[in-house]
Amino acid sequence: MEQKIIQVKENILEENSTRAATLRKILKEKNIFFINVMASPGAGKTTLLINLINKLKNEFNIGVMEADIDGDVDAYRITDQTGVKSIQIHTSGACHLTAQMTHDAINEFDIDGLDLLFLENVGNLVCPAEFDTGSNINMMLLSCPEGHDKPLKYPLMFEVSKIAVITKIETASIFDFDLEECKKNILKRNKDAKIFVTSALKDLGVDELANYIKELVKNNK
Amino acid sequence: MEQKIIQVKENILEENSTRAATLRKILKEKNIFFINVMASPGAGKTTLLINLINKLKNEFNIGVMEADIDGDVDAYRITDQTGVKSIQIHTSGACHLTAQMTHDAINEFDIDGLDLLFLENVGNLVCPAEFDTGSNINMMLLSCPEGHDKPLKYPLMFEVSKIAVITKIETASIFDFDLEECKKNILKRNKDAKIFVTSALKDLGVDELANYIKELVKNNK
Repeated sequence: MEQKIIQVKENILEENSTRAATLRKILKEKNIFFINVMASPGAGKTTLLINLINKLKNEFNIGVMEADIDGDVDAYRITDQTGVKSIQIHTSGACHLTAQMTHDAINEFDIDGLDLLFLENVGNLVCPAEFDTGSNINMMLLSCPEGHDKPLKYPLMFEVSKIAVITKIETASIFDFDLEECKKNILKRNKDAKIFVTSALKDLGVDELANYIKELVKNNK
Repeated sequence: MEQKIIQVKENILEENSTRAATLRKILKEKNIFFINVMASPGAGKTTLLINLINKLKNEFNIGVMEADIDGDVDAYRITDQTGVKSIQIHTSGACHLTAQMTHDAINEFDIDGLDLLFLENVGNLVCPAEFDTGSNINMMLLSCPEGHDKPLKYPLMFEVSKIAVITKIETASIFDFDLEECKKNILKRNKDAKIFVTSALKDLGVDELANYIKELVKNNK
């Protein structure tokens, strides 16, 4: 049984990688830059995205995909507070997005007009890291209440994410969150990680992140 | 492919249920009560367990299993701060514990002397809810920083957990956490859920939880 599980998982991941590569090629032809956003439940993905999109939307045409096991409040919030098109993906219980699910969702947009696509993945620090969604870059969020030790416990998520955003920094002192220790732990997992320290509510550090993303999108053209 | 995945998953879950039932029978014969603790990363599982165990250890012989993808700081913390035996389980990347992994870990204890076993599952609000670990009861934690809407987004976790512990309640006002709304959302998923409102650091509500668990363990004899 164990061997069969491993084999099936390898097949699934291989098939997923092929589909992800195809999707990436299609988006490249359309000059669309695609960012996969991952984090634990409640790390502040939607709140950060709203702030970020409001800083980017005058320069780029943006689309957002909101993946949840259930509920649709996030997609509504995004559109309500930014004006950009946002669609809800329900995963039917699944703990992650595959490239196929992402591709199906992207077909809901008029992609000819898009510059930048965000996917807000399922709140989960484990499984989404295993599946290539077809994105150009992975951006992961770690909130201060979760603790600075998380890169040690959830290695793959930090390894596959080029952008690591520390969120809710205004609460660091309440949770004995050690920022320098956290940065060290992140760089242990990915020495090339680009780390941003933010508070979406207090609008701290989000400009720096927005500027970094602007460069990525412009260099994609 | 899709059909094959579903079939394999059904087989895995069925085999897991059988193993879980066997483990539950073995523990029943030894009068051991087994609690599976689940939550998001950083919800405060270890801190709550330490407080809880210190309130229970004079009355019961307790063992703790700490499941993590990587790292062993939690098992060390438990033993250091409570004196009870704690063993670390590494899941080799897996996002949840199976009954077999739990059973293998339990064999590390001298189970003849035990009254109460805790398993701290992998930090993940999705996958661990799918796998019966052989426990007598599931206890899930939701921390205030995660938000009161989580029962709407992660239904299965709340459906399978008889005990729902709200943690870090001292931070509720900082995160606009609506306690009454959260309780309503939890009861929507499981009308029989027993809800405890706690702060492990401030020692709020943990006595009530400890008393509830004492009754469960005594009634198991």
